[in-house]
Amino acid sequence: MGEVIDKLWRRINENSQRYLGVLNDLLSFPSVSATGEGMDIAGDRVRETLESVGLRSEVYIDHGGYPVVWGELREERHGTLLIYNHYDVQPPDPLDRWTSPPFTPQIRDGRVFARGACDNKGNLAARICALDLLMEVFGEIPLNIKFLVEGEEEIGSPNLKTFVEKHKENLSADACLWEMVGSSPSGRPIIYLGVKGILYLELHAREKRPDLHSSWGAIVRNPALELAHLIASLREKSGRVPVQGFYDDVEEPDDDTLSLLEELREAESEIRAVAGEDGLMTDKPIKDLLNDLLLHPCINICGFHSGYTGQGSKTVLPSSAFAKIDVRLVPRMRPEKVLETLRRHVEKETGGRVTIKPVDMGYPAARTSPREPVVELVTRTAEAAFNSKPLIYPSAAGSGPMYLITDYLKIPCVAAGIGDHLSNIHAPDESISVENYLRGVLHMALIIINFVPFYRSGVAPYL
Amino acid sequence: MGEVIDKLWRRINENSQRYLGVLNDLLSFPSVSATGEGMDIAGDRVRETLESVGLRSEVYIDHGGYPVVWGELREERHGTLLIYNHYDVQPPDPLDRWTSPPFTPQIRDGRVFARGACDNKGNLAARICALDLLMEVFGEIPLNIKFLVEGEEEIGSPNLKTFVEKHKENLSADACLWEMVGSSPSGRPIIYLGVKGILYLELHAREKRPDLHSSWGAIVRNPALELAHLIASLREKSGRVPVQGFYDDVEEPDDDTLSLLEELREAESEIRAVAGEDGLMTDKPIKDLLNDLLLHPCINICGFHSGYTGQGSKTVLPSSAFAKIDVRLVPRMRPEKVLETLRRHVEKETGGRVTIKPVDMGYPAARTSPREPVVELVTRTAEAAFNSKPLIYPSAAGSGPMYLITDYLKIPCVAAGIGDHLSNIHAPDESISVENYLRGVLHMALIIINFVPFYRSGVAPYL
Repeated sequence: MGEVIDKLWRRINENSQRYLGVLNDLLSFPSVSATGEGMDIAGDRVRETLESVGLRSEVYIDHGGYPVVWGELREERHGTLLIYNHYDVQPPDPLDRWTSPPFTPQIRDGRVFARGACDNKGNLAARICALDLLMEVFGEIPLNIKFLVEGEEEIGSPNLKTFVEKHKENLSADACLWEMVGSSPSGRPIIYLGVKGILYLELHAREKRPDLHSSWGAIVRNPALELAHLIASLREKSGRVPVQGFYDDVEEPDDDTLSLLEELREAESEIRAVAGEDGLMTDKPIKDLLNDLLLHPCINICGFHSGYTGQGSKTVLPSSAFAKIDVRLVPRMRPEKVLETLRRHVEKETGGRVTIKPVDMGYPAARTSPREPVVELVTRTAEAAFNSKPLIYPSAAGSGPMYLITDYLKIPCVAAGIGDHLSNIHAPDESISVENYLRGVLHMALIIINFVPFYRSGVAPYL
Repeated sequence: MGEVIDKLWRRINENSQRYLGVLNDLLSFPSVSATGEGMDIAGDRVRETLESVGLRSEVYIDHGGYPVVWGELREERHGTLLIYNHYDVQPPDPLDRWTSPPFTPQIRDGRVFARGACDNKGNLAARICALDLLMEVFGEIPLNIKFLVEGEEEIGSPNLKTFVEKHKENLSADACLWEMVGSSPSGRPIIYLGVKGILYLELHAREKRPDLHSSWGAIVRNPALELAHLIASLREKSGRVPVQGFYDDVEEPDDDTLSLLEELREAESEIRAVAGEDGLMTDKPIKDLLNDLLLHPCINICGFHSGYTGQGSKTVLPSSAFAKIDVRLVPRMRPEKVLETLRRHVEKETGGRVTIKPVDMGYPAARTSPREPVVELVTRTAEAAFNSKPLIYPSAAGSGPMYLITDYLKIPCVAAGIGDHLSNIHAPDESISVENYLRGVLHMALIIINFVPFYRSGVAPYL
């Protein structure tokens, strides 16, 4: 059956300039949701691109916020795949650290450089080009396809829930392919079976007095001290959260999920490199580190400010202090309930002297069982397309609104992508390798042509 | 003997315009040590003022830093009083909150408004005018007088130690009168028998990695968390410092000192007003609060910064965190030894992941026994001059380089002044009351004329 793959891969390489042209078009306009730059025309440009490969496409704005671009190919076949992407990008600052301008794509050393090259226009372009490829080779797309391309992912998807609720009927599918990640440093494609949930909070300690001369600190309460004690009570140095009730809804990962961790040992060197020398909180073995990183909730201090933080010495007893924290959630934890649990703890520890303020109520986690057929399908096709055995992560360490698919729409969902460890997402000189991009086209094509037979009989005929 | 007091007070009132003129002259030039504004001529102006009442005066710069103005009246009498003041002032910012310009003195409602009116030119002027008064009334000054008027008090007196070491021989005296404070809200003159020492430090937690996405916070060390735990280990919520060895050199106050606290009960309402509602760390009775505030060391958090502290949410795992802390010392604690004690604690708690950096090595505390004759002399003369029983504080809660007098020169030292609770020192619309200023002249005069008989026989003939 390698014949079909070979044929597709040859054709992709013959068409590579055209496929890079599709990518180039998407990368040539800004679409910065955080600042609004380019957002007035971005939705229409994406719609035109979807239409160019024969999708029926529409721009929705009825959910509020930036447009969702919808694309559909409904041929009444026996399977439906929902594809999630986003067309908005992170701000390109600092501009002076780009080798070439962020919205003028440039190919250097086999890589395409532009803001959004990896996150997430490259992914979107590869998936669109796969449809073009299949129409050219087979004259048809043997699967119902639904594209949901939002424009607010980089600002936390504040209106995606409304969109999904409004269009629930149209969103039915057998499986969903999410956008994210790419290949590991050793070239193995990474697949995520979920994401963590998130809740973002501020803690405010404020005294009913102005700043005082620091000599009063001998007897007058110091909100910076109050907050330091509170934070120490929220999280032990080992990482554990000693807050009553915090772990109540946390289920220990099942054996299927834990066994996935066994296969991720090669992540150890990357994790140690990221953490820096002596940078890990514990000296646990890699499997336990991955368990903590991917499958357990945590509280992180994102920021802390109080009093005088300029040069030299100023003897002041501050009147206020605040901290910003994010809480990463695992399945079954609800942000509202976690907030209440933390509120009780803060009240008990500080007697009401520290208030907790939700900045972003976030969303719950999402998780798809490794036993779902889509997991095997995406994994086997990735191995064929990228010529390397995939690394399957039961969850990302990060967060995204994937629960709308898995929990609200009840559709199993996996994330795959075309980035790599050099992609610099959210940073200057963002890029993807041309080869990974083209292999992403192949991966998408293989998922589509194998989907219906695999779902019907468990066989992937074109692998 | 009230006759002499009455005569002096009448004469002071007759001369009040002249004495206010001396004050006005000193307040009419800026002398901002923090910015250097006016410092080029300030020393000479002070020298001229000292010379105007017959003192031999000199401007010294051999210690480095801004000039020390020295004034002397050496008539080979049997007693010598050293007087410490400073002519530098705090910056006048914010200028737009002054009712009249800070260096254009204005009298309104019986008060003189200008930067330095209270801290410390008013004090200096009153002391100078007392010499003028005594020359006029008695034709002589019955005491050796030495004025040490420095120009760096508001920036921490960085060069005073060098000056005192260089001029040790000239600085001998029976007692020293320090500058500070004034009257309580109820009008009682306040006298301090010491100051706390101080040590100003920064704590730095820094990881060998850049800022990371906060999802890594599940397993990667967070310096903000590290620092919060360290701070909680440096100071309990009750105020106690649970650091091994911290209290080793602290002696419990003796009975003489403790009994002074009994007389300070009226401070309670002021302390509670300053602390604000529920603002005190403990619900101890006032005597214990004063004991903590004045007679025990403490650690105060002046500032704390880490990570993202702007608007909204940013999910970041910071790479560094720092805090600024001041340590207030009591007698027998040496800054160098306290630093070593804290360094050991920080090393033990953090395994070297937090470093401690001295910003200002500060100085030790100073304390004069309530049994020293100068205490009774200054107290009794203050009661006569201000018509109200003084409040004697065994120590200020704040700090100053008074140890150079008490410990290095071995001269007993007490602080008295002419401010009040409306004086706004270090703030816009700084002021003193004209009456307090004139009573300050009387107080100084009474100290001088009673000094030698009191030291010789324990009798103050002119009270």
